Amino acid sequence: MRGAENPIIAAGIVGLHALFRRGAITPVESFEVFHGRAERLNPGLNAIVHWTLEEGERAAAASAQRWRTGAPLSVIDGAPVVVKANLAVKDAPWTGAVAAYKDRIAGEDSAAVQRLKAAGAVVLGLANQHEGALGATTTSPLYGPCQNPLKPGFTPGGSSGGSAAAVAAGLAAGALGTDTLGSVRLPSAYCGIFGFKPSFGRISRRGMMLLSYSLDHVGVHARHARDLLPLTAALAGRDGSDPFTTGLARLGVAPTGAAGSLAGLRLGALKPSPCLGVAPGVEAAYERLLAHLVAAGAHVALFAWTAGDLPALRRKGLLLAEAEGAALMAEALAAQPDGFSPDLLGLLSYGAAQPAAKLAAAQWAVAQTRVAAAALFERYEAILSPTAPQVAFPHAQKAPANQADLTAIANFAGLPAVSAPMGLAEDDLPAGVQIMTPFGADRMALAIAEAFEAAGLTK
Amino acid sequence: MRGAENPIIAAGIVGLHALFRRGAITPVESFEVFHGRAERLNPGLNAIVHWTLEEGERAAAASAQRWRTGAPLSVIDGAPVVVKANLAVKDAPWTGAVAAYKDRIAGEDSAAVQRLKAAGAVVLGLANQHEGALGATTTSPLYGPCQNPLKPGFTPGGSSGGSAAAVAAGLAAGALGTDTLGSVRLPSAYCGIFGFKPSFGRISRRGMMLLSYSLDHVGVHARHARDLLPLTAALAGRDGSDPFTTGLARLGVAPTGAAGSLAGLRLGALKPSPCLGVAPGVEAAYERLLAHLVAAGAHVALFAWTAGDLPALRRKGLLLAEAEGAALMAEALAAQPDGFSPDLLGLLSYGAAQPAAKLAAAQWAVAQTRVAAAALFERYEAILSPTAPQVAFPHAQKAPANQADLTAIANFAGLPAVSAPMGLAEDDLPAGVQIMTPFGADRMALAIAEAFEAAGLTK
Repeated sequence: MRGAENPIIAAGIVGLHALFRRGAITPVESFEVFHGRAERLNPGLNAIVHWTLEEGERAAAASAQRWRTGAPLSVIDGAPVVVKANLAVKDAPWTGAVAAYKDRIAGEDSAAVQRLKAAGAVVLGLANQHEGALGATTTSPLYGPCQNPLKPGFTPGGSSGGSAAAVAAGLAAGALGTDTLGSVRLPSAYCGIFGFKPSFGRISRRGMMLLSYSLDHVGVHARHARDLLPLTAALAGRDGSDPFTTGLARLGVAPTGAAGSLAGLRLGALKPSPCLGVAPGVEAAYERLLAHLVAAGAHVALFAWTAGDLPALRRKGLLLAEAEGAALMAEALAAQPDGFSPDLLGLLSYGAAQPAAKLAAAQWAVAQTRVAAAALFERYEAILSPTAPQVAFPHAQKAPANQADLTAIANFAGLPAVSAPMGLAEDDLPAGVQIMTPFGADRMALAIAEAFEAAGLTK
Repeated sequence: MRGAENPIIAAGIVGLHALFRRGAITPVESFEVFHGRAERLNPGLNAIVHWTLEEGERAAAASAQRWRTGAPLSVIDGAPVVVKANLAVKDAPWTGAVAAYKDRIAGEDSAAVQRLKAAGAVVLGLANQHEGALGATTTSPLYGPCQNPLKPGFTPGGSSGGSAAAVAAGLAAGALGTDTLGSVRLPSAYCGIFGFKPSFGRISRRGMMLLSYSLDHVGVHARHARDLLPLTAALAGRDGSDPFTTGLARLGVAPTGAAGSLAGLRLGALKPSPCLGVAPGVEAAYERLLAHLVAAGAHVALFAWTAGDLPALRRKGLLLAEAEGAALMAEALAAQPDGFSPDLLGLLSYGAAQPAAKLAAAQWAVAQTRVAAAALFERYEAILSPTAPQVAFPHAQKAPANQADLTAIANFAGLPAVSAPMGLAEDDLPAGVQIMTPFGADRMALAIAEAFEAAGLTK
């Protein structure tokens, strides 16, 4: 199902670039390969919920023309990608998987999609997501459930589950997702691929259907660690129209050159406390990874998170999403409450009605995470933890409350965070390791993920 | 009353530095001059509410010793300053003028005071302020009203009214204040001195009694524009313990060299709409200033603020202060509600009880100000407006609601903003002009204020 058998599918973004460069295939041929595969597999997966094939075909032809003249726009020129349904793609539905918005057509591209297209990427379609991006199983009354390509009937995680599933199943070489408490990293972990949430403010959110303006990030999914940097770099940059995009310099596109650099790395490994409920298989995979890192010469120190109870912090973060989401979607909530599922309506209504002082207290607690993280980074170059406490679970099963306990930290502190696969953990399903680095040190997080991959730790 | 007759008082921070350098006086003598004047005048002003004379005397002696050996620590070494009562000064009361905290003694210096002392400044005492920093007339059940040195019975503005009054009356060469919606700039304008609120995150707020962590800033007051930079530079810098202090580089201390640089400056002058209720005398002073700027060769374009109704925006900002303040002071509010005046209790209780979605909507509207400001700075190097719509008014008069309508913009967008005097406006009282520059461009705001002063526009 993961398509490793097909070298075009297996190549990933950087690999496709190499194939285009030496003329082994053209972007038009690659478009046809991915599209053909998507046509075959998507009906069983429901990862892509809207096709943009006409424009995709035009973009592939234009990319092929640029490659013929030896003038590609970027490393991602010609790469077939899908875009999460809450990011505006001109002339496509812009719904965020919320039925209330089912008839809304985007008048223009979101900032991220603008930049994606400007870098030459080929947008195949829109990816399924959890309704309103508030939930982590990827289902909604509007689009229905998305399946995990590794195990039918199982959730791919969420909320960017369609994005991760499309990449994992080889329907696209990369994908855009969004991440409020873990929504890029959780499905990446559940589907066995790489996901990256950059530093807060790195990628503009103009044209993203916001859930929580305090915590929302645009992020990316890819099959290989080395694909994350060129994809992120294409999207990153200041944007005066996103009030929260400030101050971060552009990411360079030069390779991180990280392979083999595990020796001497100072890594703080979060020791999961019993109250986090990390599944035994996930904990075992994590311990195997840490042992490999030590064997490779890294300094790995186990530490306990002492700056507040993580499940309680995650609940505070959830309140931000519920209350801010209610404020941002106030118009639709008032006009068409039946355009929201009872579950989503319940969460948003609950958040909206809490006393303001409770929200303010939650925001303050969440912000203190930055202080805790800054203290940790005085000792460690990066902080590791399992991405999710569990592997993918059946859609029929109620979602565990703790899915985002470990990923939310990075949203609270605005930190760059990669989820990399760390091998099979339970039920033949993979677990992910989260790599967090200091605010602004996006390249370091990516370099470490590449080093893990180069050392064979991410299979 | 302003002490211009005494060259030591009139010198300001940079002037004192020159006097120390050439041995005309010593920091110990300067301490005695300011202290003597404060002893005479403070009983009528109530600008200083707690003296730190023992440590001040020691600091002055240490400074004098450094000057003797030709090794001062900074431009502000030996400068006598006062510190707003909501900033922790070790072993002094840390009250924020709230009776509930009247017995709290600071265990250590706030980050700003630490840096202030590390730069060699001499702390004379704590300055009066409005109760809880939520109000702009500077009065409280704990400390009583502070008088405007320019007119007894009149408010110095607030909330940092004691800081501004102390500098205006020549009780100190500089002062620390704090600014949530205008609390440094408003009293500076009412008292005819300079006030500066740096970019958000420039100065750590560790050890500040926070009102609104979203909007609070530490700022400075001084008699001369050129004093603002060395004072601010001494305080500025990253601090991992303030989760909101991020990313801004240290301010240089080299003089801005701005004198005479008005020609060619592109200034956007906010045209006060009738609903702002700017007093005729203030508007006339503003128009005179603009005419002088044009005559000096600046390009001055009047523009109307179209990104939301300013009084409505200020009310949203007030809600942030009320709700966040209630969350931050929750413990004292619960334990000793009678330690808060009915006015303050009313504001905080109102904010606390509003629905969370209303707070979230207000925060979002406030954040959009950054987008509006970014658009303006594509056309203008700086934005001018009156600082306050009115001059100082009698304590007996109810505070007008619109005091912070123009200053709050800079808090919402995190912009550096100076208030500089712009001459007498009404009742022989001065008005202030606000100079706002892009986020991070603190030196530019200061340079423009210096140029205004050098051109004789700030008398």
